[in-house]
Amino acid sequence: MRISVLGGDGYCGWATALYLSKQGHEVSIVDNFARRQWDHELGVETLTPIRPLTERLRVWKALTGRDIELVSGDITEYEVLASMMRDLRPEAVVHFAEQRAAPYSMIDRQHAVFTQVNNVVGTLNLLFAIREFAPDCHLVKLGTMGEYGTPNIDIEEGYIEIEHNGRRDVLPYPKQPGSFYHLSKVHDSHNIAFTCRIWGIRATDLHQGVVYGTITDEVSLDERLINRFDYDEVFGTVLNRFCVEAAVQHPLTVYGKGGQTRGYIDIRDTVRCIELACLNPADRGECRVYNQFTEQFSVLELAHLVQHTATRMGLKVTIDHLPDPRVEKEEHYYNAKHSKLVDLGLEPHLLSESLLDSLLNIAQRYRDRIDQSMFIPRVDWRKARNDRHHTTVETGAAR
Amino acid sequence: MRISVLGGDGYCGWATALYLSKQGHEVSIVDNFARRQWDHELGVETLTPIRPLTERLRVWKALTGRDIELVSGDITEYEVLASMMRDLRPEAVVHFAEQRAAPYSMIDRQHAVFTQVNNVVGTLNLLFAIREFAPDCHLVKLGTMGEYGTPNIDIEEGYIEIEHNGRRDVLPYPKQPGSFYHLSKVHDSHNIAFTCRIWGIRATDLHQGVVYGTITDEVSLDERLINRFDYDEVFGTVLNRFCVEAAVQHPLTVYGKGGQTRGYIDIRDTVRCIELACLNPADRGECRVYNQFTEQFSVLELAHLVQHTATRMGLKVTIDHLPDPRVEKEEHYYNAKHSKLVDLGLEPHLLSESLLDSLLNIAQRYRDRIDQSMFIPRVDWRKARNDRHHTTVETGAAR
Repeated sequence: MRISVLGGDGYCGWATALYLSKQGHEVSIVDNFARRQWDHELGVETLTPIRPLTERLRVWKALTGRDIELVSGDITEYEVLASMMRDLRPEAVVHFAEQRAAPYSMIDRQHAVFTQVNNVVGTLNLLFAIREFAPDCHLVKLGTMGEYGTPNIDIEEGYIEIEHNGRRDVLPYPKQPGSFYHLSKVHDSHNIAFTCRIWGIRATDLHQGVVYGTITDEVSLDERLINRFDYDEVFGTVLNRFCVEAAVQHPLTVYGKGGQTRGYIDIRDTVRCIELACLNPADRGECRVYNQFTEQFSVLELAHLVQHTATRMGLKVTIDHLPDPRVEKEEHYYNAKHSKLVDLGLEPHLLSESLLDSLLNIAQRYRDRIDQSMFIPRVDWRKARNDRHHTTVETGAAR
Repeated sequence: MRISVLGGDGYCGWATALYLSKQGHEVSIVDNFARRQWDHELGVETLTPIRPLTERLRVWKALTGRDIELVSGDITEYEVLASMMRDLRPEAVVHFAEQRAAPYSMIDRQHAVFTQVNNVVGTLNLLFAIREFAPDCHLVKLGTMGEYGTPNIDIEEGYIEIEHNGRRDVLPYPKQPGSFYHLSKVHDSHNIAFTCRIWGIRATDLHQGVVYGTITDEVSLDERLINRFDYDEVFGTVLNRFCVEAAVQHPLTVYGKGGQTRGYIDIRDTVRCIELACLNPADRGECRVYNQFTEQFSVLELAHLVQHTATRMGLKVTIDHLPDPRVEKEEHYYNAKHSKLVDLGLEPHLLSESLLDSLLNIAQRYRDRIDQSMFIPRVDWRKARNDRHHTTVETGAAR
């Protein structure tokens, strides 16, 4: 089918675009390269040496014979989306094109406002573009498990039946997001549900867990196809960061007690979930929510798993409990449902020692690119201004 | 106490600023006159001939000896709020400074994006300004009962205790807003609750019902203090519109069956609720939600009340059921709690025949300013583009 991947130059987007192309879908990418820009702003780099998108696409074509069309543009400009929808007539749009790091949104007011405006306006534009130019097109939107927060009851997939004073209704699951970024996803979810109701948009809102891993079958074909692997305190997801820390025998940076429990997913499952959602579109007017993760872990459990694997590999790794820079419960109940994607056919890659092995090996392979000063959290949720602007010089010195 | 009223030139804001000033509070107003601008854009006018804000404030000073300081500026520019907070050091900020009409937000993409960006960014800026310059300042934010939508269970005041699979938690009440405007208020509510949690902001989120009436003790002192009275399809709230329609013997414009039930409040109670919230501030870190309305009515019940009063006054008024331009349930369960403001001391002005009499009299007094073409809904929720730009000429002709 014809699928457009918004944000196809990013971490999940790139893996998804290649996977869908490999499966025989007619794939296009829309991206404005903002993710690369934010690296420059923060003075950080992906562990892995990613190539420019145009080169990636040339290599993919040379290796597989498959074309992926590139639309360079910012979806907060409506005309970018409007012309893409008119010209390419996608049957599904996979929407990754958002600022996706909680710490980035918590740097200061400008970053909070940027994150919410960028994400909300991009999604609004997409909803209007679908309504105007391709009303049958299926929106596959990346949300986050972080929209739910950590309630003291089981987390359902998007909706919950509530009995109250003798009456019943099925209502949107209450949201308690934990950063301006997570809030932006909650705003999106409400906007999407509304347009499903008034315009009959088809939508699947994937509430994704924390993604880990970097190797998918497609990117492993050639080093020039390699995916991002972020390990810095702003964009690095926790398991990836721990593996890089372990590779250089830096203490694992656990925030607070480490009892923070979340849903996790291997990037190889992310790409499969996206295809499953595309192949099984929502009905007109339906706003489906799937919780896209495969296992729950606490941060401390992950640290112990990484420590165990690293030790077996001969690395000496300790665990540091840093003061938690986030405002979150360090111990709490957490039980989130995640059966709908399995019902559609997902066969999870559960976190294994061999996967941790492979992540540690990648980290060791690129160890001369590791900047250890990037491990330490410098964005404090309690402050309204965190200075992340004067990093380059310090970073150079600390390397 | 020192209270700043953001949006103090608008309908609720003006009545509130005068009321608080009269009670002896030290009042300031921040406004960018956007509400007057939207009238020009749409080619509509308030029924009542409102005076420029500077004149209003001069008259108020002349009549009462009381100063109300004016800060002219747009709160989406942070410096406007930052300097106001630094200079005036308000103990409470009452935040009305948002685009507040559902139909305006549904005109087209630009109006949807404008409404959400304007409202969300203004509120984010205010939260940061409180955090940075006056962390003890109490935010009194105007939300809307429309955030809840029309669930099939009782509506509580902001939070609901949910028992689920044998566990319990008190969670934010699920929101199902019905327009891009109502969505913007839901976004605000989530943003506010988050900053209460991370920064210890004190907040009262007033989920207000539909406001009616125009005369408060203060504005009736002098015609130059008169408040807005909007009756057009975009900014006119339903009871005000019905009274103006009745005054010129135009059929009352009920949308669909008229079973749409909402909470309503007299503007004299609005101003009192605001003062009650200010005088009883939320604790640090507390995000209180009060449902600010006093009675529930269906649209058709209101139409019958207006028809009855108008008939007694010798007016011939019929009721028209127009196709509903909104996507909403035309018949539904509705039972919303509203006891918390009464517990603080609110003594409601319930809707009476004498109030309807007075509204009809005002409408008759200014009947030569009524433009009947403004009664008819022209913003259709089902369309992505509603042409509201070419109104002036038609309006002149139809008058």
